[in-house]
Amino acid sequence: MSRFSFTIAATDGKARTGQIDTPRGEIRTPAFMPVGTAATVKAMLPENVRATGADILLGNTYHLMLRPGAERVANLGGLHKFMNWDRPILTDSGGFQVMSLADLRKMSEEGVRFKSHIDGSEHFLSPERSMEIQKLLGSDIVMCFDECPALPADRPAIEKSMELSMRWAQRSRDAFGDRPGHALFGIQQGGLEQDLRARSAEALTAIGFDGYAVGGLAVGEGQDAMFGCLDYAPDQLPADKPRYLMGVGKPDDIVGAVQRGIDMFDCVLPSRSGRTGQAQTRFGQVNIRNARHADDPRPLDPECTCPACSNYSRAYLHHVNKAQEIIASMLLTWHNLHYYQELMQGLRDAISAGNLDDFVAAFHARRADGDMERL
Amino acid sequence: MSRFSFTIAATDGKARTGQIDTPRGEIRTPAFMPVGTAATVKAMLPENVRATGADILLGNTYHLMLRPGAERVANLGGLHKFMNWDRPILTDSGGFQVMSLADLRKMSEEGVRFKSHIDGSEHFLSPERSMEIQKLLGSDIVMCFDECPALPADRPAIEKSMELSMRWAQRSRDAFGDRPGHALFGIQQGGLEQDLRARSAEALTAIGFDGYAVGGLAVGEGQDAMFGCLDYAPDQLPADKPRYLMGVGKPDDIVGAVQRGIDMFDCVLPSRSGRTGQAQTRFGQVNIRNARHADDPRPLDPECTCPACSNYSRAYLHHVNKAQEIIASMLLTWHNLHYYQELMQGLRDAISAGNLDDFVAAFHARRADGDMERL
Repeated sequence: MSRFSFTIAATDGKARTGQIDTPRGEIRTPAFMPVGTAATVKAMLPENVRATGADILLGNTYHLMLRPGAERVANLGGLHKFMNWDRPILTDSGGFQVMSLADLRKMSEEGVRFKSHIDGSEHFLSPERSMEIQKLLGSDIVMCFDECPALPADRPAIEKSMELSMRWAQRSRDAFGDRPGHALFGIQQGGLEQDLRARSAEALTAIGFDGYAVGGLAVGEGQDAMFGCLDYAPDQLPADKPRYLMGVGKPDDIVGAVQRGIDMFDCVLPSRSGRTGQAQTRFGQVNIRNARHADDPRPLDPECTCPACSNYSRAYLHHVNKAQEIIASMLLTWHNLHYYQELMQGLRDAISAGNLDDFVAAFHARRADGDMERL
Repeated sequence: MSRFSFTIAATDGKARTGQIDTPRGEIRTPAFMPVGTAATVKAMLPENVRATGADILLGNTYHLMLRPGAERVANLGGLHKFMNWDRPILTDSGGFQVMSLADLRKMSEEGVRFKSHIDGSEHFLSPERSMEIQKLLGSDIVMCFDECPALPADRPAIEKSMELSMRWAQRSRDAFGDRPGHALFGIQQGGLEQDLRARSAEALTAIGFDGYAVGGLAVGEGQDAMFGCLDYAPDQLPADKPRYLMGVGKPDDIVGAVQRGIDMFDCVLPSRSGRTGQAQTRFGQVNIRNARHADDPRPLDPECTCPACSNYSRAYLHHVNKAQEIIASMLLTWHNLHYYQELMQGLRDAISAGNLDDFVAAFHARRADGDMERL
């Protein structure tokens, strides 16, 4: 079985493009990973997710451990087979979602005890159990179990949390062991404190991982603060390993983060917003529920080649959204994922060609132009 | 533009197989028409509905007139373009659904005044307005505006209602006019009264239609009573025109009706039941929500070639249904529509081969066998 490896083919400023090779296929970077929380990218068939250009999906350990259960998925042949996706899967550790979704949690040095938001049943997550679950699922890229404090938080709280996460990172590394072809990523914490981020990066690098995530951002701090942190945080991490910004983001978040040296992203935005009638386009976000679309025979974006734009009018998308038809979620999710992958391809091409600044300027100019009516 | 025509290629007992030719393509009979109520077959893309083998869809005049509105659809180029389905569409008249869905209706000789179940707005339907709406939608097969009384009803009520429907049939015919390539179907009424059915058939035949529906069945009378009526009702209608049994039905309803000379069917069952976890299979209905499927690695039906059966386990279908994921509706609807079309193809082939009795015996034997666990 081939090993997990990362190759940088070109750089432009701090931005990099290249690919991650895994036994289940390559991941072109910068990469956007659609979120398949409960073993499905909501409202999409996996072959259609692939058709948008996705090389890798994200699965959520927290959701999958509760339903259908990691042991069950393992008995059924693993998550890839279960959900009919044979390319790479990254799983998060469950840490973030335990904090945001579960009830009555109790945290200790050992781990987190919590009650399922689905049925109230009691569960326990620790670095060791998270590694075990991610192995049972068959994840290709496993994330360390960490604590992600909500921002704003005071410096002592962030420091204490970061130090706990670094101890959990070592335990994750020890529990993961040696699994050729599978990768373990460390997660940098430290909030918006540059020196804490540096200490976290040093601790992770000393342990040694196949890739490094910038964690603890996109939790309410705003884009300016996030970019401020990304001006230094990626540089603190090893340059020869993939850098993954967890839970990000809006298209302009992604563009700014790529400029700052990030290689991987995941976010529910394209799928979630598609289910509420929000289309992500080259011209910004379009609310298809707006009455001005009701009689509009034009496609959402005449230059987009996705099925929603190729085969339907804005009037149709408006109608099925208003009527709460499932096809509205199907078509807008497909469009949004298509747009995100097209954006990533544009970023990769621009970095390869050494004209990322021009690409980014055009990206912002189109969005400033904004008004879809003027197309 | 070619005309609408019906050709019977073979018969077996009372059963017939052949095709309806329309400018938008052929309809192989016996035909099952998936229901696309609000300009979408719920949870399906139209190209995938076509891939199941559907030659024609049904659209609901009542729903479409309320939202998005018939004039709007016409301005957008008609229903085919609006919903991305370029093959034939049959629209019902709105009469049945005004009775079952709308509020505060007032019926007169002229027509029906009612309030929308969506927003309470007031509307009026008559034979003339129904013809106008169906023309605005661009329907290929237009249904007469009729009244469909709920059963059981007493004979005087059924007789009075049938006579009204026959006067409305004449007004529908007059309003429809001459539209080459488009068909108008009459609807036989008369409840379970053989002589009233005969009088209705005579009245319709005297007016002259391109096809004839058996209306007023599948409204709670039960299969025995329905089959009892179908033992004579189709025979009362012209043999050289398509016969359409409206709103039917379960697979065994369809098989029994084909044996009695019916050529066309529509029903929400395969799509609606798919959205509630009910799979229609060669072995009967399977409730994928049942806990016995939770760990089952086998496909729903190993002989079925639909995506749900080709790519997923019963355990996966169970999981996504329990988790209320949209993909559960997508996959089970696809399976159910695939099964229905496979059943229709089986019926057509059996009639062509002259072995319908054998086909029907095997159909019932498999369902009596029943237990999917024994596969």
